[in-house]
Amino acid sequence: MSTTVTPNDQPAIGRVVRRKEDTRLLTGRGHYVSDLQLPRMRHVAFLRSPYGHAKISRIDATAARSAPRVHGVFTGDLPDFAAVTLRALSALPSYVETEQPILARDKVRFSGEPVAAVIAEDRYLAEDALELIDVDYEPLPATVTAWLTPEEPVHAEAPDNVLLQRTFDTGEVPEALAGAHLVVERELVTNRHAGNPMECRAGVALWDGERLTFWSGTQVPHIARNMLAELLGLPEGNVRVIAPDVGGGFGTKAVLYPEDVALCVMARQMRGFPVKWVEDRAEHLLAATHARDHRYLVKAGFSADGELLALDADVTCNVGAYSVYPWTAGIEPLMAGGLLSGPYRLQHYRCTVRGVATNTAPSGPYRGVARPASVFAMESLLDDAAQRLGMSALDIRRRNLITPAEIPYRMPSRLVDDSGWYGECLEKAVATIGYDEFRAEQTRRREAGENPIGLGLACYNELTGLGRAAAAGPRMPFRTGHDACTVRVNPDGRVTVLSGVTSQGQGLETTVAQIVADAVGVPYEDVEVRIGDTNESLWGFGAFSSRQAVIGGGAAHRAGTRVREKILRLAAELYETDADDLSVTGGEIRVAGEQKPLGTLAELARVAYLESNRLPQGIEPGLEATRFYDPIRGAFAAGAQAAVIEVDRTTGELRILKWVCVEDAGTVINPQVVEGQIAGSIAQGLGGALYEHLIYDEAGNLSTGTLMDYLMPTSAEVPDLVIEHLSKPADNPLGVRGVGEGGTLGPNAVLAGALTDALGVRVTHLPLTPAVVWEALR
Amino acid sequence: MSTTVTPNDQPAIGRVVRRKEDTRLLTGRGHYVSDLQLPRMRHVAFLRSPYGHAKISRIDATAARSAPRVHGVFTGDLPDFAAVTLRALSALPSYVETEQPILARDKVRFSGEPVAAVIAEDRYLAEDALELIDVDYEPLPATVTAWLTPEEPVHAEAPDNVLLQRTFDTGEVPEALAGAHLVVERELVTNRHAGNPMECRAGVALWDGERLTFWSGTQVPHIARNMLAELLGLPEGNVRVIAPDVGGGFGTKAVLYPEDVALCVMARQMRGFPVKWVEDRAEHLLAATHARDHRYLVKAGFSADGELLALDADVTCNVGAYSVYPWTAGIEPLMAGGLLSGPYRLQHYRCTVRGVATNTAPSGPYRGVARPASVFAMESLLDDAAQRLGMSALDIRRRNLITPAEIPYRMPSRLVDDSGWYGECLEKAVATIGYDEFRAEQTRRREAGENPIGLGLACYNELTGLGRAAAAGPRMPFRTGHDACTVRVNPDGRVTVLSGVTSQGQGLETTVAQIVADAVGVPYEDVEVRIGDTNESLWGFGAFSSRQAVIGGGAAHRAGTRVREKILRLAAELYETDADDLSVTGGEIRVAGEQKPLGTLAELARVAYLESNRLPQGIEPGLEATRFYDPIRGAFAAGAQAAVIEVDRTTGELRILKWVCVEDAGTVINPQVVEGQIAGSIAQGLGGALYEHLIYDEAGNLSTGTLMDYLMPTSAEVPDLVIEHLSKPADNPLGVRGVGEGGTLGPNAVLAGALTDALGVRVTHLPLTPAVVWEALR
Repeated sequence: MSTTVTPNDQPAIGRVVRRKEDTRLLTGRGHYVSDLQLPRMRHVAFLRSPYGHAKISRIDATAARSAPRVHGVFTGDLPDFAAVTLRALSALPSYVETEQPILARDKVRFSGEPVAAVIAEDRYLAEDALELIDVDYEPLPATVTAWLTPEEPVHAEAPDNVLLQRTFDTGEVPEALAGAHLVVERELVTNRHAGNPMECRAGVALWDGERLTFWSGTQVPHIARNMLAELLGLPEGNVRVIAPDVGGGFGTKAVLYPEDVALCVMARQMRGFPVKWVEDRAEHLLAATHARDHRYLVKAGFSADGELLALDADVTCNVGAYSVYPWTAGIEPLMAGGLLSGPYRLQHYRCTVRGVATNTAPSGPYRGVARPASVFAMESLLDDAAQRLGMSALDIRRRNLITPAEIPYRMPSRLVDDSGWYGECLEKAVATIGYDEFRAEQTRRREAGENPIGLGLACYNELTGLGRAAAAGPRMPFRTGHDACTVRVNPDGRVTVLSGVTSQGQGLETTVAQIVADAVGVPYEDVEVRIGDTNESLWGFGAFSSRQAVIGGGAAHRAGTRVREKILRLAAELYETDADDLSVTGGEIRVAGEQKPLGTLAELARVAYLESNRLPQGIEPGLEATRFYDPIRGAFAAGAQAAVIEVDRTTGELRILKWVCVEDAGTVINPQVVEGQIAGSIAQGLGGALYEHLIYDEAGNLSTGTLMDYLMPTSAEVPDLVIEHLSKPADNPLGVRGVGEGGTLGPNAVLAGALTDALGVRVTHLPLTPAVVWEALR
Repeated sequence: MSTTVTPNDQPAIGRVVRRKEDTRLLTGRGHYVSDLQLPRMRHVAFLRSPYGHAKISRIDATAARSAPRVHGVFTGDLPDFAAVTLRALSALPSYVETEQPILARDKVRFSGEPVAAVIAEDRYLAEDALELIDVDYEPLPATVTAWLTPEEPVHAEAPDNVLLQRTFDTGEVPEALAGAHLVVERELVTNRHAGNPMECRAGVALWDGERLTFWSGTQVPHIARNMLAELLGLPEGNVRVIAPDVGGGFGTKAVLYPEDVALCVMARQMRGFPVKWVEDRAEHLLAATHARDHRYLVKAGFSADGELLALDADVTCNVGAYSVYPWTAGIEPLMAGGLLSGPYRLQHYRCTVRGVATNTAPSGPYRGVARPASVFAMESLLDDAAQRLGMSALDIRRRNLITPAEIPYRMPSRLVDDSGWYGECLEKAVATIGYDEFRAEQTRRREAGENPIGLGLACYNELTGLGRAAAAGPRMPFRTGHDACTVRVNPDGRVTVLSGVTSQGQGLETTVAQIVADAVGVPYEDVEVRIGDTNESLWGFGAFSSRQAVIGGGAAHRAGTRVREKILRLAAELYETDADDLSVTGGEIRVAGEQKPLGTLAELARVAYLESNRLPQGIEPGLEATRFYDPIRGAFAAGAQAAVIEVDRTTGELRILKWVCVEDAGTVINPQVVEGQIAGSIAQGLGGALYEHLIYDEAGNLSTGTLMDYLMPTSAEVPDLVIEHLSKPADNPLGVRGVGEGGTLGPNAVLAGALTDALGVRVTHLPLTPAVVWEALR
C-alpha cells in the first residue's frame, strides 16, 4: 500500500508521506512527560489501599512527615483535598451520582485506590516514606462481580450498587419473539481488560502563584483544562494543560484521575516547586481504568430464512468503584445498548443496560468502548442462529446487513447510520480470505484427521466523530462535538497549524498537515502542526470515539480553505486578475491551466505581513484563519473481519492462519497511518480475545497485577494482517470516517466464531485461553 | 492622579487598575531570562577585543579547548560563524552596506567586539577559558570622533567612514536666510550615552534537532524570529522566540546582536544542550548599543518679531563600528533630520544628516532616537534668538508653534503632524510652574545676590505608533507598522488575549487588558493577557517608537470589538431580541437601559464552546477573533517641559527646584502607567543631560566602562515631577497617542535653557556636569 513521496504539487491527501513526528520520535528526541526535568522538581508517590473494601479508622503520617527529604505528606482529610471531589454528572434520571475523592476518606472502595501521597526529593525517598504511613483499615465484604448480589454496597447512595440503568425499547419485542421461527438465547461474559498503553500515566504540575501548568499524557487537554479550573476554582486562562508526546492512550488517558487532581492540588501547596508523578506498571494495572467486564443475556428471534426479527437483551457492565470522571458509569452500558444491534436491520429491540458498582478499579473508555464485547454478543447470536437454521455464517449476515439504499438508517436505539457499506466490507473480506477454498480445506482436514480449522466472521459499525446530536445525550461537561483549528501562513510562506487535536501515537501531526497542505495549497513539507497545548490551540474535545480525523480534520480543512480564499483574493488584487481564475498549489499561484506561476505564496505572505503598504484596500494584513467544524452527526464507519484459525488438538493452542480486515475509512488521508490504526486495534482486540484478563479474587485483590500475570500480545502473537479499504467518501468536508477503534471490535467475535466453526463448540466466556480451548476439545 | 478601583461595570480605560504584572513582579515571581534553568544547560562567555581597531593575525584556542569542563570554543573563522553575518539594509542610495560578523574575523572594529566564545559548564569556567585563548592583534589607528578625519577607515567600503548621508531640502533656505532679520548660528555637541536597562542583555538558545527556541530579553520577538530564521536558513515555524519578563529595554533590546545570533549558532552545535549568556554590566557598557554622539551645525533665520524663517543644518551622528541590525546606520541621522524642526512652523528647511562609522560601539535605537539631541539643538536656537531679539523664551515659542487649526501639518521633512496641541501643552506647563512668580523670584534673588535661578523650556512633537507610511522608507526587513491581537473568550466567560505587543516594564499586559475589557464588555479582572511568545501571538512588530499602545492597542480594540459583535449576535438569537438593543458590560448582557441582565457572558460562552447544540443556525462555535491594526500614519504626540533650576555659585552644582511636563497622550488608558512612562523617560533624559557619558580615549578604549565612571541618576537625583495630561483624542480607534519617549526629549534643552536663563551663558556641549557649570560661572 505504501507509495513513495511524490512531487510537491500533488495532493498530500492519499499519500504515504514521511510522518512529521517520526524525525523526533525515531531519533530519541520525543518529549514525554517523564522526560520533563524542571528545576526544583519534587517527586510524588501514592499510598494505595491494599484492600478492596475497607473503612479507614485512622491514618498516622507523623513518621512519614519527618522522613529525610520529604516535603509533604497528604491525606484525604486535609482541607484542600477534602474540598475537591470528582462528581461525574449524567442527565439520565436513573443515574446515581456518587463522589470520587481525590484521596480516600473514611473508606476505600477498591484495591489500589489512592489513600495518601508523599512528596520527596526523589521517587525513592517518596516510596520509602509511604511505608512509614500507618493506616488502620477495617475490612468490609467486597463485591467484585457485577451480577452477584452485593453483601455491602460500594456507595451508600446505591444500596444495590446499580449506578445507572436504562432500557432501550423500540417496536414490539415480545410479540416479534413470539412469532419468530427460531429464538436463540445466550449468556455471554467478557473478560475485564484494559488499554495498558506503553507509557503509563504521568503528570507534572507547577503552580507559579497565579497559574497552574499541568503536563500530562492526557488525551483531552482542553477538557482537562476546564475541569481542573472548575475543580480548583481558577479561571480557565490560569490553567494550562500540555500534552507533550504521549505513548499510547486508547481511552485510558481520556479520564481525569484523582491522581491528576491530587498532583495539581499538591503543586499549589508546593508553590513554585513542580511535582512529578510517573505511574509504574503495577500502579497502572491496579488503578488506571479497566473495561469490558460485562455480562450479556441475549435472546433473538429469526425467521426461517434467517431474518433477524427481534432482539431482547439485558446487559450488565461492571463499572468498578466509581463513575469515572467525566464519563460516568454510563460509558460502557450506554454504548453497549446503543449499538448492540450493530450494522443489522432491526425493528424490534429491547435492551436494558446497567452500570453496577463493584470493589474493583473504575471502568472507563477503552478503544471501542463496550463494542468489542457487544459485537461478540451480537455475532455469537448470528452464528448460533445460522447453525440452527442450517445457513452459513456468511449468508445470515448477508441477509441482515443494512445496505447503502437504506441510508440514512435509523437504528432501533435512534442512532442514525450514514454508511451502509457493510455488505461490501464483508464480501471483500471473504473474497480476500478465500471462503470457498477455506471450506474445501476444512473438509479435507476433517477427513484427514488433521488439526481442525475454522473460519470466523464479524461485521460492525463504528460511530466515529461524534457530532452535536450524538454528544447531546448525557449531562457531560459538554454536549457537543466540535474542534477548532488555526491555520497561519507565516511571513516566509510556510504554514503553522495550531490544531485542537491530540495525539497519543496516531500521527495526527501528519494527518492534519496533509489536510492543511491541500486546503491551503502548499507542499506537505511546508506545514508544521502544533498540538497538545491549551495555550496554543483554541479548542479541541480531544481523542476519543475516533473523532479527530473527522472533526479535527474537518476544522483543519475549513481553516485552510479560508486562508486559501484570502490568498487568492490577495493574489487577484496584486496580479490584477480574477480570483476565480487562480489556483494555489505547491505554494505557487497560477492562472488555471497555465504552467508558469504568477508568483509564490512566500511573496504574498511577505506583503501580508511585512509590506502592508502594498496591501490592496480592504484586505487586512496577515494570512490566518481559525475555524471550527461542528457537524450535527458523526460518520459511521463500516468494517468486517474474517479469520481462519487452526486448533492444536494436543495443546488447545489456537493458531491464527489468516486475518483479513476490510474497513471503510471514507477518504484515506494517509494509507500508512490508517493501516497502522487498524493493525494496532486488531492487535489490541486479539490481546483482549486471547490473553488479557484482569482477575480479582473474592476479597477484591487484583490477581493479575504484573505483566507476568496479565498477558499482552507481542509482535510474535499478532499474525500478518491483510487490510483493505473501501474508501466510500462520507458526507463531510473531507469525506473521511474515523478509524482506530474498529479493529478492536472484530477479534472476540471472529475468534469465537472460528472456534465454533472449527470445533462446533459454543464459547460463552472470554478470553479464549488454551485452557478454554482444551476444555472445549474434551 | 491615582484613583481607586471602581466597580466592574465601569469602563476600565482611564482608570488606575492594579497592574496585571505586579502580583508576579512584586512578589519575586517575575521570570527573566536569567531565571531560566534548563536541564543540561551550558554557559557562554565571550572574548572581546581589547583594541578599538586592530587586525587579527592569529587566534589560538587550543589551550581553551582542552580546559576542564569546556564544551566548545568558537571563533569567527569556523564555517558556521563565517556563514552568518548581519547586513542591515537600507533603500537610501547613499547607504554603504557593510557586514557585521557574528564573531570578528580578520579585524576588530571596536573595543568590546566579540572575538571568540566559550561554552562551559558554568560561567566561571567559561570566563577562565577565555584567558587561555591567544589572539595576536596588530593595532590600527582608531577613529572615535565622527567629525574628525579618519586615519584608517573602519570599513574598506567607506573610505571616509560615511555610511549614509541624506539631505532634506524644502523651500528656499539661502534666500530665506538672506532675508532674515536675525541669523543665529550654533555648533552643538551631545554626549554619547545609552539605555543601560537594569537587566542587561541575556539569552538562552536551545536547538532540539529541528527547532530553535530562543529566550531573549528582546523588544522585537517576532522580527527576531524572522531574522533568525532567515540567518540560520530555517522555516520561521521552526524558530520560537520567547521574551519573558524583561527588565527594561529603551531601544537597546530592539536590536539583533551578534551575541544573539552566536548563541543560536552555538545551540545548533550543542544539539539539545541549551546555552545561556547573561551579559554583565561591563560587557553591556562596552558592547550593547550606544546613542546620541552627535554634532549639530545649525543656522536659523528669524524675523524681527521672532518668526522662524529658515533652518539650515548639518548633523553628524557617530554610528559606531557597524550599521546595527536591522536598523542601519540611518536610525539616528534620519530621525534627527526628519524631526529637527519639531513642532514649529517652518517652510524653508535644509538639513544634511550623515551617519559616520567610528571605532566605537555601534549606536542604535534609544528612547527618543536622536530627538533628545535634536530638540536640544532646535530649542537652543530658539533660546538664542529670543535673547537676541529681546523676546522671552516663552514668546518665541508661542510665535512659532503649530496650532490645531493647521492640522494636518506637513512638516518640511514631509512627515505629517496630526496633533497641533503644542501651544496648549506649553501654556499649561508655564501656568503650572508659575512663570510670573518665577520671574519675580529670579529678580529678587539676583538683587539679593543669592544663588541664581533660571527657567528652561522645551516643546517637542513625538512621532508615535509608526504607520505604513512612515515605516515605508528605509529598506528594513519590513515596511509596515501593524500588530495583531487575538481575543478569546474562554468557555468560562473570562478572556484570554494573545497580543503581539511586548513589555520591558511598561505594563503592556495591563494596558491591553484594559482595552480588551472595555471592547468585549467584561471586568478588567477577567482579562488575562499573554505576550512575548512568537508561538502564541500571531504578529507584532515590537516595542519601539512608542507604537504599542497605538498599534497593539488598536489591534486589541478591534479584536475585542469583533468578539463583542459575535457575543451580541449570539445573545440576540438566544434571548430572542435585537442585537442592536443589547449591550454587554461587566460580563453581563442587558437590553439597553434596563437594570436586570438577560444573562451572562459565561452562559453564552458555555453555549459557544460546550453546548453547540444550542447554537443558532449560522453561528459557528467559539468566541474568538484575531484582528490587525494597520494605520496609514501614526499619531503625533505633543509635549512641553519647563523647569526651574538653581545654580550653586560655589560648587557649580545645578539643583532642580521644579519640573513640569505636560503631554498629550490622547486618551489616557491608565494614568498611572502613562505617568510612569513619562516620569521614567524624564529621569532618563536627566541622566543624559547631567550625568551619563560614554567616553572613549583616542585609542578607542572606553574610559567609562563601569557604573563608577558612567554615572546614572538614582531616585535622589530625580526631582519631584509634576505631570499633566491634555487628553486630546487622536484619530484612531482608541484615540490614543504614544507615550514613553517624549519625556527624554525635554531635559537637555530645558536644562541648557535654564542655565542660560540663570547665568546668561550658552551651553554647547553636553552633559551639564558641575565642571561645565563651574567653568561657565568663571
